[in-house]
Amino acid sequence: MLTGYHVAVIGGDARQIEIIRKLNEWNATVYTAGFDQLNESFTEATDLEFDSNQVEKLDAIILPIPGTDDSGLIDGIFSNRVIQLSEEWLKKTPEHCQVFTGIANSYLKELMVKVGRPLHLLMNRDDVAIYNSIPTVEGTIMLIIQHTDYTIHGSTMIILGLGRVGMSLARIFDHIGADVSVGVRSSKAAARVHEMGLKTIDMNKLDQENMECDILINTVPHLVVDHHVIKQLPSHALIVDLASKPGGTDFDFAEKRGIKALLAPGLPGIVAPKTAGRIIADVMCRIVKEKVRKENADE
Amino acid sequence: MLTGYHVAVIGGDARQIEIIRKLNEWNATVYTAGFDQLNESFTEATDLEFDSNQVEKLDAIILPIPGTDDSGLIDGIFSNRVIQLSEEWLKKTPEHCQVFTGIANSYLKELMVKVGRPLHLLMNRDDVAIYNSIPTVEGTIMLIIQHTDYTIHGSTMIILGLGRVGMSLARIFDHIGADVSVGVRSSKAAARVHEMGLKTIDMNKLDQENMECDILINTVPHLVVDHHVIKQLPSHALIVDLASKPGGTDFDFAEKRGIKALLAPGLPGIVAPKTAGRIIADVMCRIVKEKVRKENADE
Repeated sequence: MLTGYHVAVIGGDARQIEIIRKLNEWNATVYTAGFDQLNESFTEATDLEFDSNQVEKLDAIILPIPGTDDSGLIDGIFSNRVIQLSEEWLKKTPEHCQVFTGIANSYLKELMVKVGRPLHLLMNRDDVAIYNSIPTVEGTIMLIIQHTDYTIHGSTMIILGLGRVGMSLARIFDHIGADVSVGVRSSKAAARVHEMGLKTIDMNKLDQENMECDILINTVPHLVVDHHVIKQLPSHALIVDLASKPGGTDFDFAEKRGIKALLAPGLPGIVAPKTAGRIIADVMCRIVKEKVRKENADE
Repeated sequence: MLTGYHVAVIGGDARQIEIIRKLNEWNATVYTAGFDQLNESFTEATDLEFDSNQVEKLDAIILPIPGTDDSGLIDGIFSNRVIQLSEEWLKKTPEHCQVFTGIANSYLKELMVKVGRPLHLLMNRDDVAIYNSIPTVEGTIMLIIQHTDYTIHGSTMIILGLGRVGMSLARIFDHIGADVSVGVRSSKAAARVHEMGLKTIDMNKLDQENMECDILINTVPHLVVDHHVIKQLPSHALIVDLASKPGGTDFDFAEKRGIKALLAPGLPGIVAPKTAGRIIADVMCRIVKEKVRKENADE
């Protein structure tokens, strides 16, 4: 339980709704800003008033998953209000006040250093990335079915990268009946792909590998799906790039060759906002609870 | 090879394109009607002229998957032309001429009895139904991801029926990470569900079973998803009914309770027309080849 724990949730999307629900469930005192246009209302949440003394009680602040923009503005899909995260306001929070976000740009990182409050980048965590790979895989399945006129079952598929998402992709697409090869760099990853009963592609010498396939999924965040790779794809092939923007695909060249290529980062929030919200909420609440438990033990 | 074998393909959709491709590949002589608005043209196919003596050479006629309407009219998505399948014309075909369709209404069945030509109902075949279950499962996955805000992984799912489609659904959704129960009537099916490591629901006493779940998929072609079942579903539940029209769900009651329910027959032709066409083409060509082989052996 988080009784007596004060949290401000500022801006965000449907995922924040699940976070607020979870915090209520655990009896935290919740303040919200940026949810004025939400149809349902949280009876157990209080409006956050930036000018009031609420700020002095805050044990945690939860920002949207993308953090702030380059000038510290916070976006929220449930509000037209522009919310500025200011240095002055943050300094009024108790020194132990933790700030949670998915990712952070240099503005947010520098701001947090200036005010000296701990910043948690949830999307950098291995556990969050692995939990998030579940809705990412399901979103990828949906995209492939929508954008091809053949089944995944029986298709040849190359997955580039055996990271936190690549591993989930490889396992599920193998189960669905695709003929899966996985592009890896390390001998450790090659061994794992072999153990899974799948074929290996050596990404250290991608220009010498046969890259012909029906479906190519990239998870590597730098240019790997280049001229050489795209040239080998048949006209009916589909490229799905899951790497964060701008992806790892030469989209211009793919278009020239008439190969459909989709850049699809951020699938969890799109295809399963409820699950994605729960993932964030669970991990965040675990961090907070762990801290509360430690403090109680120290006393 | 089908050299010297004459086939007329009359009407249909994208699946027929694959069938024509396959027949060309095997060197059959192909006549087509109802493809005048198709962008690509078949260089190796001849236009079928109903008044010519082409009819006397036909070894096989391929109708659209849905057969004809109640007055013998043939539909084709690549033509505005109305094509009538007449008794008079069919009688001009050689006596051994085989007619292929997916399903047949009583008009078509009676017509074929009158003219005394063998009629093959491809969709009634176990092999076609099992091959078709692959795109059906993928279409079902797509629909579920589109219509829920939670992942399939971790959801509780009930599948009603362990037939040719139910078996494929149970296996794949288990692999994707759903918590799957399967509704069955026979002790044989219950044993198979147990062997697959899944939970059984006894459809002989559905009114005594706990039907609460996140996702309910029906494959049984009579009313099984009734008041009693729907009442037990939570408001976020999704019903997908794959049984042929009108399905096995009380859709009016589902709507009254605010439960989303989708009737989704014919998914293969929608989500993967290329694969669906190949399935039909492969089975049809196997039947034709088998017959040709037998005739050659008899001579």
